[in-house]
Amino acid sequence: MAEYKVPVRDIEFAFHDVLDLTAHYQQLPGAEEVDRDFIGAVMTEAAKFSEDVLAPLNQSGDQQGCQWNDTVVTTPDGFKDAYQQFVDNGWPALAQDVEKGGQGLPMSLQMSVYEMLISANLAWGLYPTITWGAVTTIEAHGTDEQKRLFLPEMIAGRWTGTMCLTESHCGSDLGLLRTKAEPNADGSYNITGNKIFISSGEHDMADNIVHVTLARLPDAPAGTKGISLFLVPKFHINGDGSIGERNSVSCGSIEHKMGIHGNATCVINFDNAKGYLIGPENRGLNCMFTFINESRVDVCLQAHGQIERSYQGALSYARERLQMKAIPRVDKEKPADPIIAHPEIRRLLLTQRSFSEGARLMAYDLARLVDLVRSGSEEEKHQAEAALGFLTPIAKGFITEAAIEATSHGVQVYGGHGFIQEWGMEQLSRDVRITAIYEGTTAIQGLDLITRKILADDQVQYQRYLTEIKQFCATNKAELDSLMDTYLQYLATWEQTTARVLEASLKDLNEANAAAVDFLMLSGYVVMGYYLVRAAVTAKANLADDNDGYYQSKMDNAVFFVSKIMPRIHGLQKQIEAGTECYMTLAGKDFDLASE
Amino acid sequence: MAEYKVPVRDIEFAFHDVLDLTAHYQQLPGAEEVDRDFIGAVMTEAAKFSEDVLAPLNQSGDQQGCQWNDTVVTTPDGFKDAYQQFVDNGWPALAQDVEKGGQGLPMSLQMSVYEMLISANLAWGLYPTITWGAVTTIEAHGTDEQKRLFLPEMIAGRWTGTMCLTESHCGSDLGLLRTKAEPNADGSYNITGNKIFISSGEHDMADNIVHVTLARLPDAPAGTKGISLFLVPKFHINGDGSIGERNSVSCGSIEHKMGIHGNATCVINFDNAKGYLIGPENRGLNCMFTFINESRVDVCLQAHGQIERSYQGALSYARERLQMKAIPRVDKEKPADPIIAHPEIRRLLLTQRSFSEGARLMAYDLARLVDLVRSGSEEEKHQAEAALGFLTPIAKGFITEAAIEATSHGVQVYGGHGFIQEWGMEQLSRDVRITAIYEGTTAIQGLDLITRKILADDQVQYQRYLTEIKQFCATNKAELDSLMDTYLQYLATWEQTTARVLEASLKDLNEANAAAVDFLMLSGYVVMGYYLVRAAVTAKANLADDNDGYYQSKMDNAVFFVSKIMPRIHGLQKQIEAGTECYMTLAGKDFDLASE
Repeated sequence: MAEYKVPVRDIEFAFHDVLDLTAHYQQLPGAEEVDRDFIGAVMTEAAKFSEDVLAPLNQSGDQQGCQWNDTVVTTPDGFKDAYQQFVDNGWPALAQDVEKGGQGLPMSLQMSVYEMLISANLAWGLYPTITWGAVTTIEAHGTDEQKRLFLPEMIAGRWTGTMCLTESHCGSDLGLLRTKAEPNADGSYNITGNKIFISSGEHDMADNIVHVTLARLPDAPAGTKGISLFLVPKFHINGDGSIGERNSVSCGSIEHKMGIHGNATCVINFDNAKGYLIGPENRGLNCMFTFINESRVDVCLQAHGQIERSYQGALSYARERLQMKAIPRVDKEKPADPIIAHPEIRRLLLTQRSFSEGARLMAYDLARLVDLVRSGSEEEKHQAEAALGFLTPIAKGFITEAAIEATSHGVQVYGGHGFIQEWGMEQLSRDVRITAIYEGTTAIQGLDLITRKILADDQVQYQRYLTEIKQFCATNKAELDSLMDTYLQYLATWEQTTARVLEASLKDLNEANAAAVDFLMLSGYVVMGYYLVRAAVTAKANLADDNDGYYQSKMDNAVFFVSKIMPRIHGLQKQIEAGTECYMTLAGKDFDLASE
Repeated sequence: MAEYKVPVRDIEFAFHDVLDLTAHYQQLPGAEEVDRDFIGAVMTEAAKFSEDVLAPLNQSGDQQGCQWNDTVVTTPDGFKDAYQQFVDNGWPALAQDVEKGGQGLPMSLQMSVYEMLISANLAWGLYPTITWGAVTTIEAHGTDEQKRLFLPEMIAGRWTGTMCLTESHCGSDLGLLRTKAEPNADGSYNITGNKIFISSGEHDMADNIVHVTLARLPDAPAGTKGISLFLVPKFHINGDGSIGERNSVSCGSIEHKMGIHGNATCVINFDNAKGYLIGPENRGLNCMFTFINESRVDVCLQAHGQIERSYQGALSYARERLQMKAIPRVDKEKPADPIIAHPEIRRLLLTQRSFSEGARLMAYDLARLVDLVRSGSEEEKHQAEAALGFLTPIAKGFITEAAIEATSHGVQVYGGHGFIQEWGMEQLSRDVRITAIYEGTTAIQGLDLITRKILADDQVQYQRYLTEIKQFCATNKAELDSLMDTYLQYLATWEQTTARVLEASLKDLNEANAAAVDFLMLSGYVVMGYYLVRAAVTAKANLADDNDGYYQSKMDNAVFFVSKIMPRIHGLQKQIEAGTECYMTLAGKDFDLASE
């Protein structure tokens, strides 16, 4: 199996050279002291843990999977020990509030650490991730008493969290959910219902599990406006914070999945389980949205990590595997050349490399906005929230789709070996498949982008972002003239297409709904292109120090992406222009719903 | 798990209405009596076997997989019994020579039966498939004695065959292979070497296994011109055709794979195993090419079958799953509408449906050419061989890539459920992944198309095919005016792009090599579009009898494909026009091979 090496230089290039996050920290309340040396030290330790402890468990975790036996879930060999190390070394609390036992570092720094964990072992990485989401929810909406009882253990990672949303009949459409919450005299609630697809829902790695659960109060209105949020611990918590009796919440079974076998995806049954309301009644969904952007950024990193890992594997194989003679020959003494010399293999590898680089830059820039949402001034917070809201569906939708493509390329570079489990390439393509589904499918992201984040926002954020890109290009055009020219043509196509979709949607909202995914993908290429062009501008400024072609490779990425990948925009534009007629108003069998 | 139902009406529509294969049989020596009733009877029986026997073993075969224990391979429960039924009912011999115990029916009829088997259970279907390839090779190149000894049992299916090509260091580049053949005094050879990725290489379903094996004679020239072909039986065969002692060929292990778990993919070790030369010395690769087009058509059907099955599953789910309110509402009384009413789900489903329909038509039309290659007059044979050679890489490359996309859409329609094994959608996407790799990767198909089938052929077949399409469109334009107009624009783009690639390749052959896959995909959209437009013309002629919107749905397919899928051609055209500069002459790290 191809080894995973944390691409420290690439991470630093993105973090420091392109996005200059240390400068951003100097403006960020509480992060002023976080300098490059300190960041380097954190990253070095995280890289060591990821490479030495987590990466070796990735394949064995896939093969062994989780085991379920009468409500008890056992994680694959080594997962529990790795988690214990993670807790002992204080990693769960990296970006948490100092007052509650955290280390108070910026979320963006945690996210670059997270990139390493999740690249090394996606299934394992989901255990801490979801806890972070639960912690954020409790911090934002919990009472002081709830914070006192739950947060210290969860922040330390000794207890983990889950997010219990989905039920068998409702995933994207949470308004349909049925789990009930009956009030008790003591202010608590009895929760009854069944949840499915609960990641990290039950396992053997922590002392307690806190289920952040959506349910309906008895008198709640129908739909999304009648959903409330509850904390339901696996074990009751005594007044002093110690663990009490078992609560009547349990794991009914675990799913057998296409990938992420090492993560327990659980059916969780609530049978009059005791829970505690968090946030206002009937505002549960709004409370959940507190952390939804953050968790979508996490998913971007998950998808990025699998691209990166697939690229590393494919690159090393392509440089070693000798097959067919190339034009020109690399080494005439050998019977064949390394396959990296063949055009099609180069195309696959460079697609992977530019997607990996672009996805990292996009995700880190979102992480910068998350920092501002968490710690900025009121105005910064407000602006960052809006910018994050606009960019998140593009990043989440596009990067996860790009990851499905890129990890499939990794399989293809290996030929028949790519299909064999031993080499690890097929696992990456299986594991990553879920990222385009959970935390909102690509369709949900597309609808969010076009209807809520552009239409309902009167294009405010969209125009702001366009202006940012245009200003950047104007300022730096002289640097990369012909590249910028090509890029700016695609930027113009984005504007034209947006205008067209918005106009069409005035007559028929389905025009926007139907364009949603194509428009999301088109937007994704433009946005990723912007970050890669930014990287190229940065790289060009460093060319004088380029001893090993490293900075040149960053320019190569941008040239390749703009020249060879962005032309897909022509197709997407025409697909959108084709409108809805060819598939919304079909009169034929199976699709003509009106006549049935 | 979604049930598989043989789409009898769709098969008949393609077979009879669009392609009129019964008229073709009336011209085909030996097939004149094969009429629609007879075909219907064969298909009904095949459908029953596929639905009742094979389909139920698809998921269990995936979960159980094959077991290897000290050279012995055990197939999943039920596989052996199903195979015995298959043999008992004479299915293996359907299209085989009557004189050798076959039923002498056209290969195209066998291929429509094969579609059913392989849709029901791809892993199982690979056992008989590969035997057919081995039989074809022996028929074409074996001595009379070899035919007498091997063919009756293989044709009856009591013995199976394999194709032993790949070695660990060579897949696409067979010129590198090392397995040796030392001549014995009795005219036989001792074969020594190790082969990998041998599908159906060892199993418990047949009395003997005949390995059709590539190896080098002691004095053979290097490269592809020094490879000879041998028959190496698992058990020696006595002079009377009965089974003798075990030969020294054995299964060293089986691979653990992404998919097709029920098919044993074997390491086969030859340790001075006795083998028999088949065909002329050093012409082994040429002998293999006898049946390579046929086996690539089989792969088209494999890929098609998984699309069809994924579509069936997704359609039934999308019609039942209620989630979100659609515009317009389907049923206002319900809290949500079936997801088939939502634009994005329709887009995914119609992509699947049009790919499935188009792939079936393409594969059947290739099967018609196979009939002519096998049974036509010398002139027909010659023409059909050339046409088949041109169309096969387009069909194999494009349909398998389309199948990767379409089966992924099937997962997406199911949302989180698509990622769960129980529903069967993820298995289809795993199983189908290999089709874009084996029998020549997509890159190999692309290179074959542009360099051998267009450049080296002086465009003869390409121009002939263009003329066929243009004539069809001219004759039928009045029927579907606006659809044809759009289609013809894409046809023109194909012509322009071909001219451009050929021109660029005169200066630098890498321009053709680099364009290969994009050009293949562009060609595939045009070719599939042609078949779907043909289907629409046929359907339109039947509209008067369209009681249930069936013929309308065929027109819908063409409109959707031309309007919403073919615009991808704009992107592919521009990607090709970008040329090779952006990735062949990179100066940066890892890709600058010249400076290393």
